[in-house]
Amino acid sequence: MKGELISSLKEKNRTKIVFLVMDGLGGLPMGERNLTELEAASTPNLDTLAAKSLCGLLDPVGPGITPGSGPAHFALFGYDPVETLVGRGLLSALGVDFPLTPRDLLMRANFATIDSTGNLVDRRAGRIPSEENERLCRKLTQRVKLTSPEAAGVEVFFRTEKEYRAVVALRGDDLHEELEETDPQKVGVPPHPPRALTPEAKRTEVIVTELLTKVKEALADEPKANMLLLRGYGKYRTFASMEERYGLKALAIANYPMYRGIARLVGMEVYPLTSTLEEEIVALETSYQNYDFFFLHIKPTDSRGEDGDFEGKVKVIEEVDALIPRVLALNPDVLVVTGDHSTPAALKSHSWHPVPALLYAKTCRPDRVTRFGERDCLSGGMGVMPMRHLMALALAHAGRLQKFGA
Amino acid sequence: MKGELISSLKEKNRTKIVFLVMDGLGGLPMGERNLTELEAASTPNLDTLAAKSLCGLLDPVGPGITPGSGPAHFALFGYDPVETLVGRGLLSALGVDFPLTPRDLLMRANFATIDSTGNLVDRRAGRIPSEENERLCRKLTQRVKLTSPEAAGVEVFFRTEKEYRAVVALRGDDLHEELEETDPQKVGVPPHPPRALTPEAKRTEVIVTELLTKVKEALADEPKANMLLLRGYGKYRTFASMEERYGLKALAIANYPMYRGIARLVGMEVYPLTSTLEEEIVALETSYQNYDFFFLHIKPTDSRGEDGDFEGKVKVIEEVDALIPRVLALNPDVLVVTGDHSTPAALKSHSWHPVPALLYAKTCRPDRVTRFGERDCLSGGMGVMPMRHLMALALAHAGRLQKFGA
Repeated sequence: MKGELISSLKEKNRTKIVFLVMDGLGGLPMGERNLTELEAASTPNLDTLAAKSLCGLLDPVGPGITPGSGPAHFALFGYDPVETLVGRGLLSALGVDFPLTPRDLLMRANFATIDSTGNLVDRRAGRIPSEENERLCRKLTQRVKLTSPEAAGVEVFFRTEKEYRAVVALRGDDLHEELEETDPQKVGVPPHPPRALTPEAKRTEVIVTELLTKVKEALADEPKANMLLLRGYGKYRTFASMEERYGLKALAIANYPMYRGIARLVGMEVYPLTSTLEEEIVALETSYQNYDFFFLHIKPTDSRGEDGDFEGKVKVIEEVDALIPRVLALNPDVLVVTGDHSTPAALKSHSWHPVPALLYAKTCRPDRVTRFGERDCLSGGMGVMPMRHLMALALAHAGRLQKFGA
Repeated sequence: MKGELISSLKEKNRTKIVFLVMDGLGGLPMGERNLTELEAASTPNLDTLAAKSLCGLLDPVGPGITPGSGPAHFALFGYDPVETLVGRGLLSALGVDFPLTPRDLLMRANFATIDSTGNLVDRRAGRIPSEENERLCRKLTQRVKLTSPEAAGVEVFFRTEKEYRAVVALRGDDLHEELEETDPQKVGVPPHPPRALTPEAKRTEVIVTELLTKVKEALADEPKANMLLLRGYGKYRTFASMEERYGLKALAIANYPMYRGIARLVGMEVYPLTSTLEEEIVALETSYQNYDFFFLHIKPTDSRGEDGDFEGKVKVIEEVDALIPRVLALNPDVLVVTGDHSTPAALKSHSWHPVPALLYAKTCRPDRVTRFGERDCLSGGMGVMPMRHLMALALAHAGRLQKFGA
């Protein structure tokens, strides 16, 4: 309903909107100074910007809910993060450019090591390199043939994602995603069977069981990667694109498969892979004339948070701050700086804490926030707001939403 | 839906959550100092705690809605306060330990005084003591027999609640709760008839009308309590327990029948009656190892508010503050201090004003609130939040909610 309302008011113009998203930006206080990563970072450019911006905190899914990257990004792009829940397999498949069809069931697969009794020894097969993964996927493609009556007409595909991570796709009629994940999330036990969670998924269980048996046979002679663990089952789904919903021609500048996948799912074009922050800014500069909306994804804030590396996360934020003048030099009509969720170094994981955000535009009503930080943003004009409303605010500030009613 | 989402993410662990609920905590400024009851109270322990906590204000049902104690407590426990609306009769029946069945229709009954013309003289029968109430209930149980064809197979029960308050239960097939309340809320007029509000409730109207006629006959020789006023009709309903919804084994430490009733309705165990605040803390201490969640209900804040006794309410808050170190000594993983609704002494009644709240946990992101008061909490990290989200926040801070999506 909310999405349809926004969509019904959309108006095209020539304005540009930039979303600069530091993954896992929100933090928690640590150390003697009792400051969060963002509060501890020296961010003169973001602070100057905050003073001219509408600031606040964004709640990705709802109070207390720790989001995965999928729901958090859907919320950033204005989609209801609960309604749009998709299996991670689908996001990964999109991320590796797998040519999807509506009959596909996608799965995230980890190469893993099992011992002679079938118990897991390493859930990541010693973090094998991507090249090794590619060899294994070719081997599986050659050797794994489904032959049971249940699997008649079902095709199987193996694709490398990164390091030990791969995507497995089943293509056939009436496949279902309601299966138990086979990754038991610990070692010393065998993988779970892919048990059907609904009666309709029973035939899919039989097919996936056969698949795993044949994968195990095919990998029996491998020293490390002798098994696959499956999770994140996801049937192919489509969503109204950002062009349809908002009239925005959108570009994603993002380097991790999942974020590229999400961007494709909402109809963004995806920029070729870059490898540094600086290169991402160059990508923004060189593409600037050709799109209306830019999603610039910065991963290391989240990675440093997951590592528990407070100082490392501070440093990434400071690097981003230093590049802000380059973004401002493009003179975007709306610039949003925020994260998709919090990843406090103190917790070494995603968390439920709201994410600081600023929205800069000539048409914004600045508040009294003069520093970009979690506690400063609490007195901002957005308040603590559901993240999915951010996109409507961005559109409004870009003059891209008509009046509602007379 | 929201409740189901939380439920689907629940994860059990060994953490402890304590909800310390001062009934009617929120207030309004009064007197020369222009402070609310909580602002006027000397609360050194709560202030120190607030400085380390996530603070805010909770809106029990919605902006402008003054809640009864039932909806307010359902919201505290994370249940939608509108969907869970139950007749007060049901809560009272639960509170007096009446053995309910799914065929029961429950009613709150006040003993009242009518004059010879049938007009109400006293809606509370001179606030008769509980012992008198018990005698009257025994008398009614002996004398009131339903004999009309409509009442065939319908049983009636009378139970003392407290002072002039009682519970009447009808047990039979196809009873309906959609009847007009007979308490006209003023004296000098006769009680309302229990008129059916839907066609389906017509037979129940006939039965309740017969019931009231026979109650009047049975009490005709009583000097004070010669009539019953009925309200709060409620059919028996069940709710998913806190164990089912959240994986929490919960204990209620509460002394008023209705709160004990609500606690039972959401599957809490209920501690035996205590009579002082100090005894409630002892109950918490002695039960601490045996439960995951503790609802500690403090009634006098509300009672003093209802009396218009500003200083009395201040005093109760100060007594609670003095006991905070005892609670903290248990080292709860999450401690919430709040109220169920506001009862400003200035209004002598429940009100719609949001309730101050603090949530203390090692994983909370403190804000800049350094004093526990209504206006201080306005700059807290929760903002002004619907009360029903509090439970999800408490679960999250206790590590009891899994990540949503990948």
